[in-house]
Amino acid sequence: MSHPTTQDGDKATQNAPPRTTNSGTMRALRFHGKEDLRLDTVPTPLCGKGQLKIKPAWCGICGSDLHEYLGGPSICPTTPHPITGESMPITFGHEFSGVIEEVGEGVTEGKWKVGGRVVVQPIIYDGDCGACQAGLINCCYSNGFVGLSGEFFAKRVRRKSRRRIGWGGGLSDHLVVPEYAVYNLPDNVGLDVAALVEPLAVGWHAVNASPFRPHSDDSVLILGGGPIGLSVIQALRARGCKQIIVSEISTMRKQYAKDFGAHVVLDPTKDDIVARCRELTGGQGVHVTFDAAGVQPGLDAAILALRARGTHVNIAIWEKRASFFPNDLVFREKSYLGVATYVAGDFQEVIEAISTGKLDMCPRMITKRIGLDTVVEEGFEALVKDKDNQVKILVRCSGEM
Amino acid sequence: MSHPTTQDGDKATQNAPPRTTNSGTMRALRFHGKEDLRLDTVPTPLCGKGQLKIKPAWCGICGSDLHEYLGGPSICPTTPHPITGESMPITFGHEFSGVIEEVGEGVTEGKWKVGGRVVVQPIIYDGDCGACQAGLINCCYSNGFVGLSGEFFAKRVRRKSRRRIGWGGGLSDHLVVPEYAVYNLPDNVGLDVAALVEPLAVGWHAVNASPFRPHSDDSVLILGGGPIGLSVIQALRARGCKQIIVSEISTMRKQYAKDFGAHVVLDPTKDDIVARCRELTGGQGVHVTFDAAGVQPGLDAAILALRARGTHVNIAIWEKRASFFPNDLVFREKSYLGVATYVAGDFQEVIEAISTGKLDMCPRMITKRIGLDTVVEEGFEALVKDKDNQVKILVRCSGEM
Repeated sequence: MSHPTTQDGDKATQNAPPRTTNSGTMRALRFHGKEDLRLDTVPTPLCGKGQLKIKPAWCGICGSDLHEYLGGPSICPTTPHPITGESMPITFGHEFSGVIEEVGEGVTEGKWKVGGRVVVQPIIYDGDCGACQAGLINCCYSNGFVGLSGEFFAKRVRRKSRRRIGWGGGLSDHLVVPEYAVYNLPDNVGLDVAALVEPLAVGWHAVNASPFRPHSDDSVLILGGGPIGLSVIQALRARGCKQIIVSEISTMRKQYAKDFGAHVVLDPTKDDIVARCRELTGGQGVHVTFDAAGVQPGLDAAILALRARGTHVNIAIWEKRASFFPNDLVFREKSYLGVATYVAGDFQEVIEAISTGKLDMCPRMITKRIGLDTVVEEGFEALVKDKDNQVKILVRCSGEM
Repeated sequence: MSHPTTQDGDKATQNAPPRTTNSGTMRALRFHGKEDLRLDTVPTPLCGKGQLKIKPAWCGICGSDLHEYLGGPSICPTTPHPITGESMPITFGHEFSGVIEEVGEGVTEGKWKVGGRVVVQPIIYDGDCGACQAGLINCCYSNGFVGLSGEFFAKRVRRKSRRRIGWGGGLSDHLVVPEYAVYNLPDNVGLDVAALVEPLAVGWHAVNASPFRPHSDDSVLILGGGPIGLSVIQALRARGCKQIIVSEISTMRKQYAKDFGAHVVLDPTKDDIVARCRELTGGQGVHVTFDAAGVQPGLDAAILALRARGTHVNIAIWEKRASFFPNDLVFREKSYLGVATYVAGDFQEVIEAISTGKLDMCPRMITKRIGLDTVVEEGFEALVKDKDNQVKILVRCSGEM
């Protein structure tokens, strides 16, 4: 069994800070508007009933963060969010691991301990809407995210009086979350690798939600070799997929796709994706396509690359409307499936898959490590300039680098 | 148990013509091009091995026929069809019942008799492609239709020498089909009602393919109250659907939708379809939408009218590209499902549902009966002028009116 912890993965545990008091101030990387991220000093949050106070260890920078930074606010609320009640400025960071520094009253007995190493599932949901009632917290009609929508605050833990100061994200010194959002980590999963659980869960969930049959001969086309495309590759490899085709333009990302386990990597500027997919599948087309790119030419190719009754799974967030010819889906009974983030079970499955070596390549997703103090220049601005060469930049929020 | 046969439904049986010889000529309504339909005299087809020669009794005029007539050829082949080898002119008619007038050698023993009342499933498929091998004859990569693509001719019954004269459609005096395309009718299903099996099977299949759960509280929105919309209503009623909402503009079709069992009929020019669907479903949105209209505003409304994880089922054939905002599907994990015609089992299920009274309203779909001699004026031209008031015009191909 491989050991997915990288060399310095456990330092945060060893260096877990002493339990802080519920007062004072702390650092939080807050989004004030387009290209305006500031490492602000804000009040330290209080740990309430049913909650855990977490000291973030490592936090990844996500494509959504970059998108907000460059063109937002689009996800971040400019008027009070229906669940958190908060609006801009918003603390960033939703891909993070950390260490428990305070355990609130009334949490599950024996489950949590100060110093415990954890990862946070950042979905904010109201628990009352039809989607939540059906168990689809990722589809909550008012949903939000820790790190994009302000304080993690679900109705079921609502406090009468709360300080609305936008402290709710992983790119800060502390944050408070309800216990149901927290997952304990096995000893052999490092805190750095644990910051990858969130993006890995996105790919894991997409594969779970798709009709791909594990350990079958089902063939797959993935559009885009960025972090989510690589997550899908890994989730498919973990389930014994024998034919993973990736379409990607960037030279570096093509190499990553190969390294992470794609069987064939195509370049849409040079290859005829539809013809090549058919060729590679005995003339039939692939069973499933995953869109981790969100661009029109990709969608067009994917629909035609599918065999009869094939399914197109869209993970990408799109910036604008897309078009398609319905008859291309109708005459061959193809389908288009939207998938969003993850549902209950996905985080636990990913943590176990990392721990048991099924996602043994994932530490290689970490291509750069930086500190919280330099996150704008070395993180966001670096990603703007060097996006294609980076998979995941991790920010050290506490402990040593 | 209701008796779905209308008053004159069985006359064709009583008047079954004597067995014809395999020579001579016959009438066939052939499509020569846009707005050019002619009742031609063509050679009578020969009945080969594994085949049945059928004398059509009643044949419906379908929206696809009208579409070809007004703007085609679009489905009809202008170069030799990959399976039938035929091209324009093409004999029309794919919604038809008839009487067996000759039984070819080598068919299933005891299953067929001259004078037997039957209905024909018109899908033409090659049997060899991946879709066919997977049992999805409706998705055959080379597929065609009796009545739209020429002679019914599948590879498995290919004869070395064949007469390519385009006789293959229900709007003619005779046609020859392989036995696997033919379904015997129960005694209580009239030949006129049997001509409705094809359009009913389209709705039946769409409901079968959808995630609608029979006899559940699943709610449904149907776009369009034409023949296919009405087929979907009936298929849903037969499966105990308790909330059928229909969106339709035409006054007459709104009335039909109500008569056939819709619980609520909305008018998109007056009602806010999305708001009304949410209102009617406790704020959640409907479980399934069926598109039997194929227009952009309908698609836009349907996607938003769905609840989380809802499914949009597209039956409509579109004339052009459609657009959508992928995030509307992604954030609530909605899906878009293309469905085409019917698969093995659907025809038999519909015939049984008619026979057992589960589709007891279907005879009311017949709004006009005409003769083959006047099919252009009283059928096609009448539909152009009076489309909204007609559901199904049946053409009497043989026997008395």
